[in-house]
Order: sequence, then C-alpha cells, then structure tokens
Amino acid sequence: MTDRDFMQTAIEMAVENVRAGRGGPFAALVVRDGAIIGRGTNQVTTANDPTAHAEIVAIREACRALGTFQLTGCTLYTTCEPCPMCMGAVYWARPARVCYAATRADAAAAGFDDAHIYEELTRPPEARRIPMVPLLREEAQAPFEAWRAYPARIAY
Amino acid sequence: MTDRDFMQTAIEMAVENVRAGRGGPFAALVVRDGAIIGRGTNQVTTANDPTAHAEIVAIREACRALGTFQLTGCTLYTTCEPCPMCMGAVYWARPARVCYAATRADAAAAGFDDAHIYEELTRPPEARRIPMVPLLREEAQAPFEAWRAYPARIAY
Repeated sequence: MTDRDFMQTAIEMAVENVRAGRGGPFAALVVRDGAIIGRGTNQVTTANDPTAHAEIVAIREACRALGTFQLTGCTLYTTCEPCPMCMGAVYWARPARVCYAATRADAAAAGFDDAHIYEELTRPPEARRIPMVPLLREEAQAPFEAWRAYPARIAY
Repeated sequence: MTDRDFMQTAIEMAVENVRAGRGGPFAALVVRDGAIIGRGTNQVTTANDPTAHAEIVAIREACRALGTFQLTGCTLYTTCEPCPMCMGAVYWARPARVCYAATRADAAAAGFDDAHIYEELTRPPEARRIPMVPLLREEAQAPFEAWRAYPARIAY
C-alpha cells in the first residue's frame, strides 16, 4: 500500500466513526514496514476522555503492539493536521514522519478549537485564557534531584 | 487543604515515582470542591506509553470519576509547567485553572525536551524536525461533511 492508500483508509475510518456515533471526524494509523500496527479514531465523547484523539489512540495502540514507548521508523497517517496535544505526543513518540490530510484551518471551519490552542501556546503562562498559577517552584526541584540521583533512570 | 498543600502532595508523589522506578519526576492532581478526583504520575517507560505524562493520567482518571470529558470547575496541580501535549490536553479538558511548580526551563535542565517541542510548534509544518507531509486534503473534507450532516453529533 502507498501513502495515499493508507490515508484513504484513515479517511474512510473517520467518516465511519462519525456515522456510527463514536466521536469526532478524525482517524489515524501508525504504519511500520508496510503494516498497520496502530489504529485510532476520535472517542472523546463516548470514552469520556478528552485525550482520546485519533492520533493519541493510534500511538498508544502502536506502542502496546511494539512493547516500547518510541515509534522509531514508523509513519503516522492522520486525517487532519494534529492539534497541539497530538503534535506534542508525536514529538514524544518520535515517528520518522507524519502524513496529514486536512489542515488546522479545515478543522477550525468545522468547529474544532485547534487553531486557538496553537495561539494560546505561544503566549506566556500568565497571559493565557485558562489561568496558570505558579507555586512552590523551589520545593519542586526535589523530584528532579531524585531523578538525577536515581541510577536506574530510563530517559524518554 | 490549600493550593500549597495539594502541590506539596503532588511533589511528594513525584519524588516517590522516581524512587519506585515507575517513571519520570512528575506528578499531577485534579481537585474539585476540595477533593482529589484524579491522580497521575509519569509512567511513560513502565507503561510503554509516550502519552502517559502525569497530567494526562490525572485528567483521564478525573474524567472517568466524573463521567464526562470536561473538567469544569476543577483545578489541575502539576509539579512542572505542562509540556505542549499536556497543555493541549488542558485546553480540551477545560479546568478552571492550572497550578504549576517547576518551569519548562527546570524540566529542560533535567533533560526533558519540553522547551524544544514548544519551539517546534511555532514553526510551520514544513519546517519541523519530524517531517510533516501533506496528502489528500480534498478527500479529507468528507469526514467534516459527515460531521455537519450528523444530527446527533456531540461537540467537545
């Protein structure tokens, strides 16, 4: 299957997700060596999980399949440019590349808030819509000190 | 309990998470009406889940407890300024506010990549470290059309 074939499959999954009442109009696949190892559709409203975006669901499934927290050498296909949450998950999972179809502008036109969240993240914490309150910064160095002192730590 | 008490509890959870070998030096709590309804520590390397950051784990647990995908009226306490993935999750979950202790600079000094990911998200897709490949944008309007046509859709 080609890139276009995998994306077409994801688009069909996204349409079906809406028609079946399972959640928003988004789907994603993780592919490694030509095989699909993770599938996800948006399940926010049926799973009662605001993090259950298609990409997050697919990344988690692929990592379970591989038994690792990294997607080295994989491609993520997503029917829409990832929101900041999902783009963050991509950087932590580190696939080789991401193919996306619709854009964040298309998502915004359909009523999804991605574009606003991208804008928010460029603002300093004190200027955001959801108040960000700093507290106990000095005390919060203790976990980092414990981390530096823990010989068996696994970086990620 | 005050804001400082909840944060001190989270800091102790983060230290314990490291010492027990369960993952990175981070913890988070979701509190509503003075009661803790979600707890999370970083479990990336033990759960093999790159999305298992403390905030994501706590948000998911709180939503399960409430039976909803929104954290209206809640406070999220996190031992470190959220990374872009977790900040995105915050905007989708919509708590009333976020209290954070360490900063993204503190996280970077301890070897965590948050600051670099924030920089990446300000770049256009074609200029990012992980290649972003556009594909089938026109075909990908079909899920949005299905969404607009689906009368029982639930916005989120």
